[in-house]
Amino acid sequence: MKIQILNMRQTRLLTALAALLLMPLALKATEVASPNGNVVLKFQIDNDGRPTYELSYKGKPVVLPSHLGLELARDKHASMKDDERDLLDGFKLVDEQTTEQDETWKPVWGETSTIRNHYREYAATIEQQWKTAHHPDRPGVKGMYYEDHSRTIILRFRVYDDGMGLRYEFPQQKDLNYFLIEEERTEFRMAGDHMAWWLPGDYDTQEQETQQTRLSQIRTTMEQAVNWGNSSVAVFSPTGVQTALQMKTDDGLYINLHEAACADYATMHLELVDAETKAFTTQLRGHTNAYTPNPKPARARLPQPFTFVSHLTPDATGLKGAMQTPCHTPWRTVIVSDDARDMLASNLILNLNEPCALDDVSWIHPTKYCGVWWEMIVGRGSWHYTNDYPSIKLDQIDWAKVKPNGYHKANNENVMRYIDFAAKNGLDQVLVEGWNVGWEDWANMWKRDVFDFVTPYPDFDIKALNDYAHAKGVKLLMHHETSSSTQNYERHMEQAFTLMNKYGYDAVKTGYVGDIIPRGDHHYSQSMNNHYLYVVKQAAKHHIMVNAHEATRPTGLCRTYPNLVGNESARGTEYEAFGGSRPDHTCILPFTRLQGGPMDYTPGIFVTKLSEWSQNPSWARITIAGSLALYLTMYSPLQMAADLPENYEKFDDAFQFIRDVACDWDESIYLEAEPADYITVARKAKGTDNWFIGGKCDEQGHTAVVKLDFLDKGRKYECTIYQDAPDAHYDTNPQAYVITKKVVKAGQTLRLKEAPGGGFAISLMAK
Amino acid sequence: MKIQILNMRQTRLLTALAALLLMPLALKATEVASPNGNVVLKFQIDNDGRPTYELSYKGKPVVLPSHLGLELARDKHASMKDDERDLLDGFKLVDEQTTEQDETWKPVWGETSTIRNHYREYAATIEQQWKTAHHPDRPGVKGMYYEDHSRTIILRFRVYDDGMGLRYEFPQQKDLNYFLIEEERTEFRMAGDHMAWWLPGDYDTQEQETQQTRLSQIRTTMEQAVNWGNSSVAVFSPTGVQTALQMKTDDGLYINLHEAACADYATMHLELVDAETKAFTTQLRGHTNAYTPNPKPARARLPQPFTFVSHLTPDATGLKGAMQTPCHTPWRTVIVSDDARDMLASNLILNLNEPCALDDVSWIHPTKYCGVWWEMIVGRGSWHYTNDYPSIKLDQIDWAKVKPNGYHKANNENVMRYIDFAAKNGLDQVLVEGWNVGWEDWANMWKRDVFDFVTPYPDFDIKALNDYAHAKGVKLLMHHETSSSTQNYERHMEQAFTLMNKYGYDAVKTGYVGDIIPRGDHHYSQSMNNHYLYVVKQAAKHHIMVNAHEATRPTGLCRTYPNLVGNESARGTEYEAFGGSRPDHTCILPFTRLQGGPMDYTPGIFVTKLSEWSQNPSWARITIAGSLALYLTMYSPLQMAADLPENYEKFDDAFQFIRDVACDWDESIYLEAEPADYITVARKAKGTDNWFIGGKCDEQGHTAVVKLDFLDKGRKYECTIYQDAPDAHYDTNPQAYVITKKVVKAGQTLRLKEAPGGGFAISLMAK
Repeated sequence: MKIQILNMRQTRLLTALAALLLMPLALKATEVASPNGNVVLKFQIDNDGRPTYELSYKGKPVVLPSHLGLELARDKHASMKDDERDLLDGFKLVDEQTTEQDETWKPVWGETSTIRNHYREYAATIEQQWKTAHHPDRPGVKGMYYEDHSRTIILRFRVYDDGMGLRYEFPQQKDLNYFLIEEERTEFRMAGDHMAWWLPGDYDTQEQETQQTRLSQIRTTMEQAVNWGNSSVAVFSPTGVQTALQMKTDDGLYINLHEAACADYATMHLELVDAETKAFTTQLRGHTNAYTPNPKPARARLPQPFTFVSHLTPDATGLKGAMQTPCHTPWRTVIVSDDARDMLASNLILNLNEPCALDDVSWIHPTKYCGVWWEMIVGRGSWHYTNDYPSIKLDQIDWAKVKPNGYHKANNENVMRYIDFAAKNGLDQVLVEGWNVGWEDWANMWKRDVFDFVTPYPDFDIKALNDYAHAKGVKLLMHHETSSSTQNYERHMEQAFTLMNKYGYDAVKTGYVGDIIPRGDHHYSQSMNNHYLYVVKQAAKHHIMVNAHEATRPTGLCRTYPNLVGNESARGTEYEAFGGSRPDHTCILPFTRLQGGPMDYTPGIFVTKLSEWSQNPSWARITIAGSLALYLTMYSPLQMAADLPENYEKFDDAFQFIRDVACDWDESIYLEAEPADYITVARKAKGTDNWFIGGKCDEQGHTAVVKLDFLDKGRKYECTIYQDAPDAHYDTNPQAYVITKKVVKAGQTLRLKEAPGGGFAISLMAK
Repeated sequence: MKIQILNMRQTRLLTALAALLLMPLALKATEVASPNGNVVLKFQIDNDGRPTYELSYKGKPVVLPSHLGLELARDKHASMKDDERDLLDGFKLVDEQTTEQDETWKPVWGETSTIRNHYREYAATIEQQWKTAHHPDRPGVKGMYYEDHSRTIILRFRVYDDGMGLRYEFPQQKDLNYFLIEEERTEFRMAGDHMAWWLPGDYDTQEQETQQTRLSQIRTTMEQAVNWGNSSVAVFSPTGVQTALQMKTDDGLYINLHEAACADYATMHLELVDAETKAFTTQLRGHTNAYTPNPKPARARLPQPFTFVSHLTPDATGLKGAMQTPCHTPWRTVIVSDDARDMLASNLILNLNEPCALDDVSWIHPTKYCGVWWEMIVGRGSWHYTNDYPSIKLDQIDWAKVKPNGYHKANNENVMRYIDFAAKNGLDQVLVEGWNVGWEDWANMWKRDVFDFVTPYPDFDIKALNDYAHAKGVKLLMHHETSSSTQNYERHMEQAFTLMNKYGYDAVKTGYVGDIIPRGDHHYSQSMNNHYLYVVKQAAKHHIMVNAHEATRPTGLCRTYPNLVGNESARGTEYEAFGGSRPDHTCILPFTRLQGGPMDYTPGIFVTKLSEWSQNPSWARITIAGSLALYLTMYSPLQMAADLPENYEKFDDAFQFIRDVACDWDESIYLEAEPADYITVARKAKGTDNWFIGGKCDEQGHTAVVKLDFLDKGRKYECTIYQDAPDAHYDTNPQAYVITKKVVKAGQTLRLKEAPGGGFAISLMAK
């Protein structure tokens, strides 16, 4: 920092000069169009020096003029003086760069074998300048002296034909070195009272049913929308929602708001400013003991109604982020089209992520698996081994002497049964939950040392079972439930991964049930997001694939770390045993949750009325044909056949589709789509000429019209159609399906009637 | 839990019966006297069912009737219903056990080769009973039904001839399984307005000057007593003080309050209820960004003035502890005597700790060391290597290309100089701080990934320097400054310890400067105390000794984990470079800080006016003879010769004492003691017949009268006396000393005049 010593006359002169210099330059907007011109970004600095952008699609407004900026927290450490001003206003534009990029890259696994990344990029360098006055207490120095300060940030936009990404970049500089984020204030001002498919904003759970309402109805719908029964709940605002947020405008635009490449930064929610909004608020509700926030006056001005404003997940102290330059935020994304299918086909979020960071990816592979899981979720067996203790301390139990409860399901005999089933049906792996000691009392006790991840229960012979599986060409799939005690997991992780290597596991399902330990932290905070990625990176060193449940919703990081093969991060099939989900649930998830990456939805429930084989009165609102469709409509490189072997054996002809279906693809074509109504997709299995088609619909039923114009011309395909019987219905007749075989070729059209809550699945084997 | 279904008549009957049953039994007090009868404990349950104890010494009151109990936090998880009642009152006595124990054990290192543990133990099992009423919504069930609840805790007292320990024990039981501590309410009601030597209660620093005031003056003295300049400060009450708290009564009793065996539990402070106390308060002040507590109404009743009440260190959410039964609190200790020397000779706190938990202790050894440290603390050199970056990200710097600042002190040449010095003077190890990358910006930035603990700066050749040292019979002493980023340390610890093993380090000095990451936590919370012990346990697996700075004050855990060879946890010698400490500082520490375990005080400053060799205007208020005395009066198995080699070379005849002095002992005899005035101690070097005697006094000077009646009768000793010259003075003439040699034998008396801020040191080599 330059320090000038001035006398009073100079001071006055300089003050006048400074006032002139700090006036914004001519307020000219810059326009940047996407490669095909459909999407147009406009950017300018407004009269208050606030960066402002707007977005349109084919001339229709997508985002009305919206401000960008961050409120910084005031830190009392002398070393943190950089944060004395917010990054909200007082900016001037000092540089602009527009460039174009067109490249094609190959994902390690995915919906297509190549992905085109074509965008126009606009980078606005903007600067804040200010002076601080000092009254020196030094002999011989008269008057004040001033210190010049300036802070430069870069707003980077990438404009695609199907949307836009924007992020804040903070170069390393004297006046912006370390800073704390009080709140990010990125605005998305909507052009009307759109229809929206939304989940309540929550710092700790994503496992809700999707609400379909107008924006103006979010507030009145919130209370009943919250999943108050989840193991960790922290709702912060009556108009706070999660991303990916799918909307549809009255003039037929589909708009999706989300984020890309969220690493070492808090997960973003969106708070809707509506007609009743008086101020930004954080009114934490839920049953977490964590964090009671102190409402602080926001320094960002309240925008117009129908504006979504970013709201980050806080840490235990209420702060949203601790940053060190050079650094940047994740990309804030807007996907837009007038065709709903483009929402599903978009690669915008993957494209905004960094290329693969792993040198060797040969060990990463898509996986079909079954598992010792559903019978515990439904309640016919237990993860835990004994009932004889009100609580367990791992180091104080002699497991060999403990009395088993008799219904522990991760036992040798049962696991062998699943291994046999997998081997017989060409499934790659068998997940076994409840194999390791500690399940007697594990969640929401604030119990830190809950699992050690290396000690099997006495009835789980880890060596013998892995040997048995390997001899049959099957692998076991590891399970690490952390119960959100992250410190405990990090302390044991290296040993746990070493154990996996020793016995030949190459994939782990992790879990984060319950409130976070260290207490006060939240599932989607900066530190937790750092933890999840730390696990993925450490796993990669051990050549282990990760499927993280209850972790933060994905933002495309699987491009950079393709061993992150799955996440749950939404309401999965387990809820079919907890009361069930609506029939349209799986027709929404691809528009929302799946935007950021694959979901381990664990589909494939054939016996949907659980009371048929258990005491559980819940039931899945889906037909068997609908269950088969999910292997296509819910893209994932990790697909489970979640039902019991004995249930599949009852419907072995339908199960043939699960045996056949691929989980890695060269090509994917979304044929039909409407949020919460129906999705139809055709996919070409990787390295083959075989196609698979799936269609899934809501409770209304749907008739899919599938034109086979994507097949190789002149080639014949053995076509097997698994569809709902005419009288099928998700409630009254879910097991009614018809299997038809015929030979088809390119150009033919298939009409497929989907029952309420049903669907269809087709395999097309090239002859 | 038994559930009874009752009709209304039964209900009424039972209510009456319950009222009878719940009435406390006859309020008879139990008395337990210490083995020699000097200390007497009285215990009873009062009319409100509150456990109450009192303590006397030779008939004089030490603790007036005081209540015991805990407030529990209400957790909203259904799984945590156990905590719906506090553990404050409504108790009845259901069992009493009195036993006596007399055993002798051998510490791995210590002031004496054997320690006698002789006490009478009293265990009171007390029970709370209550019923909850339920209105069943079941057809065919009329009226309410009741559930019986009971909770049993054990209050265990051990009564020694020099004091008492008490703790709460929580057996595993249905109605007390997991619970959260809102606050522990252990009272110590003092019998008068005693003189006290105290430090301000603070969740994050212990590095204050001791205040000497009456209890009634704590409140008015607090503001100026706080070390507001420390890197992490969190003061919670105008009458909150730390333990070990030393007091002296007007009738000549010395009373010390502290704790023993604090493991996986928050460190205790004491809040004084004085005449102005209106309610228990937590008014957090300091410059931490952490935790803004919400004042909650305490449910414990406010006791009488002059009562100290326990106040635990909170986590980020304000909670004080998460407990799982079976478990217990640390011991709350009262040491008492009418002879101040007994305060220093007491082994009560070590005795209350568990026996050694390590099978092999052969690798643990007392250590004399010097180090590359003081010249950085004083400001003549730096820990960091370059000045060229406003901040550093470890993975983004190519250190080989970085421009060095030219005054980085952990460089090969300088370290070799210290190794030479150590080898020449028989010092075992050389501490090197600033050897590893990251020191450019490390504290109070909320920087998580601050150090990796394995990458040396380019000018520190870790292999060559260790080889060089080993060839000369010297070891290097590792340094791990964590900057309180505990997650980062735990992530790197295994690799860091493995590196130490590889190069032959067997001891590490750890540091916890600045606010804790994860943000919101405090240095002395349950989770941090767990972290410190986790480090010690992990280090033990690598045969590494730990000397933890800025960690919580010790409570005798070094008995159980003797590789915990030192702690700082108080204002150490570094403060002589930060403005200095009072001359009586080292005459207080043995009464307070050292009660729980040794302090790495880093004594031995010979050139006390730092301006003699640096720009630093600070100075140490001690004479050279006083500095020598500290090697005896401040017992530690780890003793540093902290000054520069060149400073020692100027006073090589005085330095002979540091060469000679032992740091492990077969016998220790406190000859004279008065808090903040003087301490004189004689110690017999382990495995030899040689004795060393040290005397240290305050700014008043002192004449020690040392009767050599502890020497072997009939044996001659070569006696070398290092004492202040007649005109020595800590300020005006600190380097004036006289060395006298003579032959002495048992029964002789030495009179040793100590200058203001001075002292003496004597070696007695058996002939």
